[in-house]
Amino acid sequence: MKKQMEFPENERWRMSKLHNRQIWEEAVSKGEADAKMRPICNYINSTENFFTSSGCAGRIMLLGLHGKGTKQESYFHRKWHREVKFPELWDGLEEKSRGIIWFKMEPFIIHIGTKNLEDADSLLNVMRNAGVKRGGIIVAKKGKCIAEFVGTQSISLPVKKGAKIMIDKNYMKRMLDEANSKLGKNYELLKRLEKVARAELK
Amino acid sequence: MKKQMEFPENERWRMSKLHNRQIWEEAVSKGEADAKMRPICNYINSTENFFTSSGCAGRIMLLGLHGKGTKQESYFHRKWHREVKFPELWDGLEEKSRGIIWFKMEPFIIHIGTKNLEDADSLLNVMRNAGVKRGGIIVAKKGKCIAEFVGTQSISLPVKKGAKIMIDKNYMKRMLDEANSKLGKNYELLKRLEKVARAELK
Repeated sequence: MKKQMEFPENERWRMSKLHNRQIWEEAVSKGEADAKMRPICNYINSTENFFTSSGCAGRIMLLGLHGKGTKQESYFHRKWHREVKFPELWDGLEEKSRGIIWFKMEPFIIHIGTKNLEDADSLLNVMRNAGVKRGGIIVAKKGKCIAEFVGTQSISLPVKKGAKIMIDKNYMKRMLDEANSKLGKNYELLKRLEKVARAELK
Repeated sequence: MKKQMEFPENERWRMSKLHNRQIWEEAVSKGEADAKMRPICNYINSTENFFTSSGCAGRIMLLGLHGKGTKQESYFHRKWHREVKFPELWDGLEEKSRGIIWFKMEPFIIHIGTKNLEDADSLLNVMRNAGVKRGGIIVAKKGKCIAEFVGTQSISLPVKKGAKIMIDKNYMKRMLDEANSKLGKNYELLKRLEKVARAELK
């Protein structure tokens, strides 16, 4: 009787893990997987009890917002998954755009799946031990838990409205230096997370 | 036998709930509880299965950062738990300060505790149904789960270095308008969270 009751949960878990590994392997083979995410995702997908499907190692972007600024009304005017040089940013700013353009640096985000509350708890320990302060378990079902970890570094400010660039070139340069520096710190935190994951997740 | 094994968990839960309610009631009686947090915290603390100890309904601030900008090296130059008028912000900016001053709008943060994975899962449902996109379960022990919910609205930019204000007055005015508007949206999301919590958490 016990075995019968446990079976569906294990099956659900097995399917989730397979499905998500497949998504990850496809993304890698198509060159779509963020290069900085590969070491940590490859390791986690090689463990017995954990998997990861998706993630972003952090990015710098010019995001266009229309109307009320909800996600439905936003578009990527420029997006980089690496440090950015000032001329490429300024070119992007000078190029025709609609609505309000925000300059944004966003930290990494990674989702890790596991089977039960005990393993999800060990994910929270990894999060704490690596010094990751944002995130938590976002799916908590029997047979499937998913944790989301997010870096802490971020910048977000409006820089252009219609055709008018609202900030001066020197300030934009400083902001970009700041964003590149934060992106570096963000990559360091992701490395630390990988190191702790390798030590603690099996 | 079963009863003996369950007892410590129930006891742990009962103590947590009592302890955290006490902290909340003390904060309210001392006038330290954020007024905008009271309706949702009061409701949650009146339920059978959930409690909340702390939280912030959102804030606008001038944050000073020294050295590497870690939390240990930061100080509040100005902090408001409400909409801000431009002269009070500008006064704060002109006042003597150390290091780099960041202008920040931060969203609400609330922690809700409960007893087991099933109840924690219903917290995640509340989060989703209210449209809260950041957060999750950050403590997942037998007998005690804690979820953290965070609003999405935020602004963060450096505005002063040493004695030098780095942005012009008009841009600062626009940023403050933006921050006040985001604070309003943030309060709306908190209200929605309260409404869903009232409907779904018992």
